[in-house]
Amino acid sequence: MAEAEGISSATPTEEMNGAGNLMDFLDEPLPDVGTYEDFHTIDWLREKSRDTDRHRKITNRSKESIWEFVKSLLDAWSGWVVMLLIGLLSGTLAGVIDLAVDWMTDLKEGVCLSAFWYSHEQCCWTSNETTFADRDKCPQWQKWAELMTGHTESAGAYVLNYFLYVLWALFFSFLAVSLVRVFAPYACGSGIPEIKTILSGFIIRGYLGKWTLLIKTVTLVLAVSSGLSLGKEGPLVHVACCCGNLFCSLFSKYSKNEGKRREVLSAAAAAGVSVAFGAPIGGVLFSLEEVSYYFPLKTLWRSFFAALVAAFTLRSINPFGNNRLVLFYVEYHTPWYMAELVPFILLGVFGGLWGTLFIRGNIAWCRRRKTTQLGKYPVLEVIVVTGITAILAFPNPYTRRSTSELISELFNDCGALESSQLCDYINNPNMSRPEDDIPDRPAGPGVYMALWQLALALIFKIVITIFTFGMKIPSGLFIPSMAVGAIAGRIVGIAVEQMAYHHHDWIIFKNWCRPGADCVTPGLYAMVGAAACLGGVTRMTVSLVVIMFELTGGLEYIVPLMAAAVTSKWVADAFGKEGIYEAHIRLNGYPYLDQDEFTHRTLATDVMRPRRNEPPLSVLTQDSTTVEDVETLIKETDYNGFPVVVSRESERLIGFVQRRDLILAIKNARQKQDGVVSNSVVYFTEDAPQLPASNPQPLKLRRILNLSPFTVTDHTPMETVVDIFRKLGLRQCLVTRSGRLLGIITKKDVLRHMAQMMNQDPESIMFN
Amino acid sequence: MAEAEGISSATPTEEMNGAGNLMDFLDEPLPDVGTYEDFHTIDWLREKSRDTDRHRKITNRSKESIWEFVKSLLDAWSGWVVMLLIGLLSGTLAGVIDLAVDWMTDLKEGVCLSAFWYSHEQCCWTSNETTFADRDKCPQWQKWAELMTGHTESAGAYVLNYFLYVLWALFFSFLAVSLVRVFAPYACGSGIPEIKTILSGFIIRGYLGKWTLLIKTVTLVLAVSSGLSLGKEGPLVHVACCCGNLFCSLFSKYSKNEGKRREVLSAAAAAGVSVAFGAPIGGVLFSLEEVSYYFPLKTLWRSFFAALVAAFTLRSINPFGNNRLVLFYVEYHTPWYMAELVPFILLGVFGGLWGTLFIRGNIAWCRRRKTTQLGKYPVLEVIVVTGITAILAFPNPYTRRSTSELISELFNDCGALESSQLCDYINNPNMSRPEDDIPDRPAGPGVYMALWQLALALIFKIVITIFTFGMKIPSGLFIPSMAVGAIAGRIVGIAVEQMAYHHHDWIIFKNWCRPGADCVTPGLYAMVGAAACLGGVTRMTVSLVVIMFELTGGLEYIVPLMAAAVTSKWVADAFGKEGIYEAHIRLNGYPYLDQDEFTHRTLATDVMRPRRNEPPLSVLTQDSTTVEDVETLIKETDYNGFPVVVSRESERLIGFVQRRDLILAIKNARQKQDGVVSNSVVYFTEDAPQLPASNPQPLKLRRILNLSPFTVTDHTPMETVVDIFRKLGLRQCLVTRSGRLLGIITKKDVLRHMAQMMNQDPESIMFN
Repeated sequence: MAEAEGISSATPTEEMNGAGNLMDFLDEPLPDVGTYEDFHTIDWLREKSRDTDRHRKITNRSKESIWEFVKSLLDAWSGWVVMLLIGLLSGTLAGVIDLAVDWMTDLKEGVCLSAFWYSHEQCCWTSNETTFADRDKCPQWQKWAELMTGHTESAGAYVLNYFLYVLWALFFSFLAVSLVRVFAPYACGSGIPEIKTILSGFIIRGYLGKWTLLIKTVTLVLAVSSGLSLGKEGPLVHVACCCGNLFCSLFSKYSKNEGKRREVLSAAAAAGVSVAFGAPIGGVLFSLEEVSYYFPLKTLWRSFFAALVAAFTLRSINPFGNNRLVLFYVEYHTPWYMAELVPFILLGVFGGLWGTLFIRGNIAWCRRRKTTQLGKYPVLEVIVVTGITAILAFPNPYTRRSTSELISELFNDCGALESSQLCDYINNPNMSRPEDDIPDRPAGPGVYMALWQLALALIFKIVITIFTFGMKIPSGLFIPSMAVGAIAGRIVGIAVEQMAYHHHDWIIFKNWCRPGADCVTPGLYAMVGAAACLGGVTRMTVSLVVIMFELTGGLEYIVPLMAAAVTSKWVADAFGKEGIYEAHIRLNGYPYLDQDEFTHRTLATDVMRPRRNEPPLSVLTQDSTTVEDVETLIKETDYNGFPVVVSRESERLIGFVQRRDLILAIKNARQKQDGVVSNSVVYFTEDAPQLPASNPQPLKLRRILNLSPFTVTDHTPMETVVDIFRKLGLRQCLVTRSGRLLGIITKKDVLRHMAQMMNQDPESIMFN
Repeated sequence: MAEAEGISSATPTEEMNGAGNLMDFLDEPLPDVGTYEDFHTIDWLREKSRDTDRHRKITNRSKESIWEFVKSLLDAWSGWVVMLLIGLLSGTLAGVIDLAVDWMTDLKEGVCLSAFWYSHEQCCWTSNETTFADRDKCPQWQKWAELMTGHTESAGAYVLNYFLYVLWALFFSFLAVSLVRVFAPYACGSGIPEIKTILSGFIIRGYLGKWTLLIKTVTLVLAVSSGLSLGKEGPLVHVACCCGNLFCSLFSKYSKNEGKRREVLSAAAAAGVSVAFGAPIGGVLFSLEEVSYYFPLKTLWRSFFAALVAAFTLRSINPFGNNRLVLFYVEYHTPWYMAELVPFILLGVFGGLWGTLFIRGNIAWCRRRKTTQLGKYPVLEVIVVTGITAILAFPNPYTRRSTSELISELFNDCGALESSQLCDYINNPNMSRPEDDIPDRPAGPGVYMALWQLALALIFKIVITIFTFGMKIPSGLFIPSMAVGAIAGRIVGIAVEQMAYHHHDWIIFKNWCRPGADCVTPGLYAMVGAAACLGGVTRMTVSLVVIMFELTGGLEYIVPLMAAAVTSKWVADAFGKEGIYEAHIRLNGYPYLDQDEFTHRTLATDVMRPRRNEPPLSVLTQDSTTVEDVETLIKETDYNGFPVVVSRESERLIGFVQRRDLILAIKNARQKQDGVVSNSVVYFTEDAPQLPASNPQPLKLRRILNLSPFTVTDHTPMETVVDIFRKLGLRQCLVTRSGRLLGIITKKDVLRHMAQMMNQDPESIMFN
C-alpha cells in the first residue's frame, strides 16, 4: 500500500538517482531472480557486477568489527584455498588413475603371484631374482596361460592368452559403457568441447557434478585399461574441472556467481593438463589458448598455482616410479642439424594431413551416429570396437601394450644397453665401453622387423582412432594422436639414420654427418611427429610446444618442435579452420562464439530481429501494460527477455527485463501481494502514479528492470557486434536508430549469422 | 552539382542501405582522415574495422588473378616476416650490446695489450699462459696503473686505478646523457611505462623511431659501462619495440593501422625480454602479463616465434662465451627442504618491502625532479650520481665489477674448485677428491669478509638505485633489483648454511640435515631473493617465475621461487597496488586504463559531461548547422569530436564526428568544392534536400560521420563502463536516457574519475 503513495509520475528524464533502484535489484529480494536455467547463456556483465557488489559489501563491513575483517580476509583468500584443494585432489586422482590403469592394463596379460595388486613392473621390481637386462621377466609375474596350464611358449598358450586378453578388454569396456549409461551420461567423451562451451558462459547442469566426477574417474580407468585407442588426457581435464566445481560449492563467492565459478574452472583445466603431462606451464598455456574464454590475469597466476600443486601432488604419489614429473621423460645426447629440418617439416605436413583426415572422418562418423540407428546401440558399439581393437592389437607387440608405453619407447633414444627390438642395431665390435654418445650404427634384423610392425600399427591406429573418439565412454585423443605421430616419426627417423649411415658421402649429409658420428636421433623424430599430429588435430600452438619443451626440459629441441607444429597447423588450416574441439562443438550445436575474426560486410540491421516481414518486436511499455498482457506475452512467445519502452509510439528504450525474472516476480506478486490481479497495471517507472481506489493495485517491477541494456545502432558493422558479444559476454543486444528501438540481436542470432556467412564464402576466412 | 540533385529528404528512419555510405568513408577519400594526432588515443574498434576491410579487399581481389593471389599470400605471411626480422635484429643488437658492455666495463680497469678490443675475459682466454685457477690473471691484460707506471700493488697504483676508474665512468655517462639530450630525448629511462601506454592505444610519435633506436642502443652501452646502478633489460624491450616499429613501416598492413602495429609491438616486447634473459617463454608471458593490453591468441604464437628467433640469434653470437642462452646459467646439486621455506618466505617479505621502499622513494625523487630546479640540470645530475657511484663502488670488489657479474657469482653454487672469496670455506682434509656433492663446510675468513662487503654493497645498491632510475639516460631496473635481492639472499643463505653446519642438533635442522651432508645451497637463496625483489618492484608473477625457471631449467626449484614471489607481491600490495611501471605512468600522467577492477558504486551519469551546472553539450544537428557554425564550434572548444543529433529539440543521436576529420573535410571542401561558403548548410543526412538555386551549395559530410557511436544509458554502473572502455578500447562513449542524448564520457573522464575514487577510499580496492 505504502508503495502506491509515492510522488506521482516522475517522468523518466527527471529521475537522477537511479543508483538506489539498481541496487535494490542486486539485493535479490526474490528467490532465484538472477539465476539461470539449464542450457542457457549467462550474462557476464551482470555476474561481474554482482560480484563487485558482494565484494563492496564485504569490504565495507570489514571496517565494522574484527570478526568482519577476518571474514573479509578469508573471502580474499578463498580463491587460493580453492586452487590448493583443486591441485591436491586432481593430482591425487591423476595418480590413482595412473596406478590403476597400470595394474589393469597388465591384468589383461597376466597376474603377479606375490601380490595380485602389483602391476607387471612393480611385481618384477620387488623381485630380487631379476637382472637389469631382463627386468621384464621375473618368476612372480605369470601370464594367464602359464598360470592355468603351466606352458608358456606353446601355440595353445598363445591362443589362451589371446582369448583372455580379448575377454578382459571386452569386460572392462562393457563395465565402462554400462556405468556411463546408467549413472552419468555426461561422463563420456573427452569433455573438452563441453568445457570450452561452459567456460564461454553456457549452463549445462550436472556436467561437472559429483556423479560425473566419480563415474568419469572409474570409467576412465576401465576405458584406458581395455586397450581401446584412447587416452586419459582430455578426460583428466574434465575430472579436474569437476573437482573445481565441487570445491566452488564450499564458498558462496564462487557457488553463487557463474562468472567467478568459470575463473576457477579455467584454473582447474590448467591443473588437469598439468597432471596429464607433468607440464604445469604448458597446462596454464593450454587453458589460456585452447579452453578458456575470459582469462583475467589474476586467473593466470592462480591457474599456475593450481597447476603446480597438482603436479607436485602427482609427483609425491610417483605413479611412474621414476621420480619424474613428466609422462614421457626423454633425454637426448646429440644436437639436431639444419638439414634435418626437411624431415621435420615433412612430419609437420603429415601431422596436418592426419589432423584433417581425423577431424573429417571422426565428424562424419559422429554425425552418422547422431542421425542413424547406430546411436541407439552405444553399448554394442563399444563392445564391437573393443573386440576389433583387441583382436587386431594382440598379435602386434606395438599395439598390444598400452599406448603411453609405446610412445615412451618410441621417444627414447637407443642407449647401448637397450634390449628392445627397436634398438637392435649391429654394434661395432671395436666399441669397447657403453657410453652415452653412441655413433650411428647399421640397423639389425630386429629394427627392420620393428619397422614393419610399426607400419602396421600406424595404419591400425589411424583407422581405429577415428571410430573410437566419441563413443559413450571417456576418451581422450591426445595419446592416440601422439602415438600416430610418434610411430610415423620414428619410422622416418630410422630411415634418415640409415640413409645417413650408408651414404655419408651424399651432399646432404656430407657437412654434418661424418662416419662414426652420432648424427641422427630417431627418438627426436618420434617426438616431433607426435607434436605435429597433436597440433594437426587440436590446432594448439604455443601450449603444444611448451608441453613438449617441458618433456625434454631443454630449449635445444624447441626449433624442430616449432617447425613441425607451425607446418602442421598451416597444412591442416588449409583444409579447414576448425580443430577437433570446435568441430565437435559445432556438431553438437553448442552456442560457442569462437575467437576467429568475423570478416564480412554485414551490419547489425541485417541480423537483428524482427526481419522485414516478421511481426513487430514484442515489447513492454513502462506504464500501460497489465499483468494479463504480460502473462499472455510470456505464454505466446519464448523469448528470453523483453525490451521496455516509454510507449509503443515513441519506441524509446527504457530497459530490458528477463523472461525468467518476470515470471518469478509475477508469480511472487500474485501469491504474496494483495490486490494484484490480472488487470493490475505493471509499472516499470520509478514511481507508480496515484490511482483512484477503484483501480486495482499496481505492480511495480522496476527492481527487475535492467536499466542499462546494451545497445548498438543499426549501422554498426557486424564484426563490431561480434567483437562486443565476445569481449563483454553478452546474451543479447538491442538495436536502435536515432534513439528508437528497432530490434534485438541475441547470441544465437549472431551464431546463426556467422554460420550462414561461413557457408556462403568460406574462402574469405582463410587467411586470418 | 550532381550530388545536390538526389532524392529529397529521406528521413533517417527510411534508409535501410546504410552499408554503402559507411564503406565510402572507409575508402578514405580525404587524405589523413582516420589518422591520429600526437598524444591522442586511438580508436581500436575503428582500426580493427579498417583492417578487416583491407583484408576483405585483398581476399576478394585474390580471386581475380594469380598475381593478386600471390599478393594476398604475401600479405598473409607478412606478419611472420616481420617477426623473423624483429627476432634477428633484436637478437643481433642484444649480442652487440653485450659484447660492447663487456669490453667497455673492463676498459675502466685496464686494457688488453694483445688486442685492445678484447675484454678482460676474452684477453685471458686467448692467452695460453694461464691456468684454470687464475684465469683472471694473464700478462696480456694490464691495469691502467701497471701500464703507465709499471707498478701493480703500490698505494699509488691503487689511487691511479681509482682515479681512472672514476674518470672513465664520468666520461661514459657524460657521453650517454649528452647523446640523449641532443639526439633523442625519448631514449632515456627504461621505456616500459611508455611502451605500456603506447600498447594501450596512445600515440607518442618518435618514441619508437629510428633515432631513438640508434641512440638508445649506443647510450645503453655507455650507461651500463659507466657502472651506474642500472640494467639493460628494460631498455632492451624498448630497443626491440623500436625494431618492431621499424619493420612495421615495410608493410602497409602494419604501418597504416595503429591497431595492427600494436600487435607487432607486443611481440617485439616479448623478443626484448627473451634476449634480455635468454628466456623466450618468460618473454612471451612478460609481454602478456606486464606490457600488452590487447593480446589476441594469434599474437601469442607470433610473439613466441619472435622470442625464439631472437634468443637463437643471440646464442649464435654467443656473447657470454658459454654457449648458453641464458644470462645467469645455474645448476644446483641438492634439493631444497620444506623447512627452508621459512627463509624463502622471509626473503619474499624483504622483496616486498624493498619494492615498496623503492617505488615510494623513486617516485618521490622523480616528482621532485619534475617540480623543482633539479629537472633543469639533467647532465649535471647524471655526472654527480655517476661520480658518487664510481667513488663509492671502487673500494668494494662486489660493487666495482658489473652488476650482472655480481649476480652471476651470487647465484652460483660453490664448487670445490671455486677460487672466489665467497667460496672460501674450510675444507675437510678427509675429503679426497673434488666432486659435485660437497658437504656443508664451515665458513673461512674470506666468507666472513665477503659477508661484510656484501652488506655494505646491499646498502649502497638500495640507496643509489632509487636515485639512478629515472635519470636522463637509458636505465633498466631489473638488474639492480635482482642484485639487491641476490645480495640479501646470499647473506641469508650463508647464515642458514652456517647455522645448519654448527647446530645440526637443533630441532629445525635435525630432520633433514645430517652432519656431512650438503643441505643448504646459498646460491639458491640468492636466486630466490632476486626473484622476490624483482617481484616486489614490478609485481610480475607468472612471467617472473617462468623467467627464473628458464634460468635454472628445472621444475625442482619452482616452489621456492613461487613462495617468494607470492609473498613479495602480497607484502608490496599491502602498501600500495601499483608496480613501478604503473607508478611512473601515473607520475607522467599518461592516459593508461589499468587492468585493476573498478569497484565503486558510481553510475555513468555521475561521470559524464556536461555536469549539472555546466553549459550544455556541444552537438551538431544533422541538417541545420552551417559551415560557419561548425567552424565557430571548432574554434571555441577543444573537444575531440562532436555528437550529431536529429535536432536540438529531440536530442536523438545520429552519430559522432571526429574533430580532426571535420577540420580536414571543411578545409578540403573550401579549397576544392565550388560554392561551399560560410553559410552553406552541413548535411549529415543521407541525401541533402533539393534547394533553390539561390541558396549556397550544401556540404555533405555523412562519409566522415561514425554511424555507430558507442552508447550507454545513464544508469549503467561505472564498473561496466570501465570494462567496456578497457575491453573495446574506446576513446569516448555517449550517454543516453530513453533514446535522448544526455552527455559524453571520454577516456580521460574515466581516468579522472578512477583517480578521484581511489583517493577517496583506497581501502576498498585492497582485496581485488
